[in-house]
Amino acid sequence: MRGARLAGGVSRRYAPAMLENDVFLRALRREPTPYTPVWLMRQAGRYLPEYNATRAKAGSFLALAKTPSLATEVTLQPLERFPLDAAILFSDILTIPDAMGLGLHFAGGEGPRFERTTADENSIAALKVPDMSALRYVFDAVREIKRALKGRVPLIGFAGSPFTLACYMIEGAGSPDFASVRRMAHGRPDLLQRLVAVNARAVAAYLNEQIEAGVDAVMIFDTWGGLLTTDAYHAFSLDSMRTVLAALRPGPDGREIPAIVFTKGGGQWLDAIAACGAACVGLDWTVDLAAARRRVGDRVALQGNLDPLVLLADAEAVARETMAVVRAAGAAPGHIFNLGHGIVPATPPDNVAVLVDTVHRESRAVRAETRGVL
Amino acid sequence: MRGARLAGGVSRRYAPAMLENDVFLRALRREPTPYTPVWLMRQAGRYLPEYNATRAKAGSFLALAKTPSLATEVTLQPLERFPLDAAILFSDILTIPDAMGLGLHFAGGEGPRFERTTADENSIAALKVPDMSALRYVFDAVREIKRALKGRVPLIGFAGSPFTLACYMIEGAGSPDFASVRRMAHGRPDLLQRLVAVNARAVAAYLNEQIEAGVDAVMIFDTWGGLLTTDAYHAFSLDSMRTVLAALRPGPDGREIPAIVFTKGGGQWLDAIAACGAACVGLDWTVDLAAARRRVGDRVALQGNLDPLVLLADAEAVARETMAVVRAAGAAPGHIFNLGHGIVPATPPDNVAVLVDTVHRESRAVRAETRGVL
Repeated sequence: MRGARLAGGVSRRYAPAMLENDVFLRALRREPTPYTPVWLMRQAGRYLPEYNATRAKAGSFLALAKTPSLATEVTLQPLERFPLDAAILFSDILTIPDAMGLGLHFAGGEGPRFERTTADENSIAALKVPDMSALRYVFDAVREIKRALKGRVPLIGFAGSPFTLACYMIEGAGSPDFASVRRMAHGRPDLLQRLVAVNARAVAAYLNEQIEAGVDAVMIFDTWGGLLTTDAYHAFSLDSMRTVLAALRPGPDGREIPAIVFTKGGGQWLDAIAACGAACVGLDWTVDLAAARRRVGDRVALQGNLDPLVLLADAEAVARETMAVVRAAGAAPGHIFNLGHGIVPATPPDNVAVLVDTVHRESRAVRAETRGVL
Repeated sequence: MRGARLAGGVSRRYAPAMLENDVFLRALRREPTPYTPVWLMRQAGRYLPEYNATRAKAGSFLALAKTPSLATEVTLQPLERFPLDAAILFSDILTIPDAMGLGLHFAGGEGPRFERTTADENSIAALKVPDMSALRYVFDAVREIKRALKGRVPLIGFAGSPFTLACYMIEGAGSPDFASVRRMAHGRPDLLQRLVAVNARAVAAYLNEQIEAGVDAVMIFDTWGGLLTTDAYHAFSLDSMRTVLAALRPGPDGREIPAIVFTKGGGQWLDAIAACGAACVGLDWTVDLAAARRRVGDRVALQGNLDPLVLLADAEAVARETMAVVRAAGAAPGHIFNLGHGIVPATPPDNVAVLVDTVHRESRAVRAETRGVL
């Protein structure tokens, strides 16, 4: 395999990593696969008792994310239970503003909070791309996870989108409507633009370090772009993600690293998102997957998009709705099964087993039927 | 005018009400108007000091909504300040479940809460369309407002969508993601269907009583339909709104009463919504208005869609962004200017004055330019 990877040209750029299972990467490249690969947003998380045990051992969510050995432990936990086709780095999208000195903490059971906000002229002017050494714990975790995975499945690195980071930096915490951010988009677009531009450089540097450390693909989580007007979405979110994507470098062995872009609430902007330079577009659960495929044609792979709340229903409903998503994607190459948003803590792990099994079995069946027809 | 209205046939069905200003109704029918009519969701609300004074006098939000003389007072307040082209009944979407016996209350400063939920087989089976006499205070308010308006502008009646009411009935309160509702949509679609069906009959009866009492148009607020998968949106929200619309009767003088349907987060389903039987589709602030007009053609009027957060910026930004919305709508008939969601309490009333003035002036300018070109 090494030999093939070093053969040069297209085969060099696209050569499979030394992976036992590279179905996920092949689907990202829209190559035919024997079945549909599946992983789940927040697959390492609170619905797993073993995750909660490790988190208790770490003392806090942030300590867990900042300790490479523990981050490695929880990253691998879901793979021990379920035949998932990818692992995703256990971390948080807010590591970058934390490294910028904003003082991230998680107040007991609640969401993230920053000690300082970045919401006025002075604080935004003072903002700098953080020295990547402040995020070394992330890249160390990537290296340790890659070693622990031993090539079983690809590892996905990730970052928040420049705009989504700006949301938390301006509000200082989560918010149902991020009113201050939307207010700034209208009243001081110049300030928001400057903040997003610094974030874009930081996100690009951060993802490039993750790539250097060995991730096989990267994902940009644009959790809040969907709150913007169409014009503001283009100006502050999509354009900055395009900037990030254009700055991504190949892997250490020359492999191109595919990127997934996910804007929650971005269904109505699918055409524009599909043209932003990402190999794959993540869809939230509200989007009709079959209609999305018709719209984007074969320009990109699509990832998604089962409503995570389905996993709170009974096993029969889980199987039925999972099959519906697999069938909506059809037999065309380039579908990665996922939820349409992160898995919720109340999810019974047994339902995840049903989901993964159903995706693999049903997608093989769809391929067999299609071959029968052709 | 009476004579024209009684002339029969189309002119009878579409005859203008005895209104000084019927620009809003003409825009709903996609007839040419000298300027774009404007009203604002929650235009009678907490951003107005006189509203807060009346609310203090009433003792509570619910007492205010349930006292026709006070509801009339606050309904007319924004019209005294701004040359708005329509009034909207001051009330709440949750009056229907309250009349069903769920015990609505507003806990100090927070959102609505019900004493009882309607989330299991028994409570849903027991649910009935409430006797409309329990909602007499709403219809009395409509009559009193119509008298007080003296035909200055049309009065809009409204209701929550059958699905949005179901959201609050199942959760018992507001929620960032209405997880129990989405869970029921997947796990017990039969139960949710039954609940939505009862609500649809109740909403139709409620709007028909408002029409009988004299409202000139009705609006259905589907605040939470956008949280659903595409299939579930059709099954539980859009289909039930279609049922309501089909059951609406003409006004007491035989006039057809136009309906506006507004699904927040429904931008990606615009084509389907435009075909549901409403005269007008409300757009939230995320939708590109010009693109929306291209998509729906001349099938329906469009209402919207300035981001309400723009009103927190300075007057210059308010004027600039208001003009952008007016210009995105263009000179084609059938645009009603509004916000893309309710006005927020922190809005300076002076900015609302700028908005209304800008809509009227800029839309006259757009029409003049278009005539110049033609």
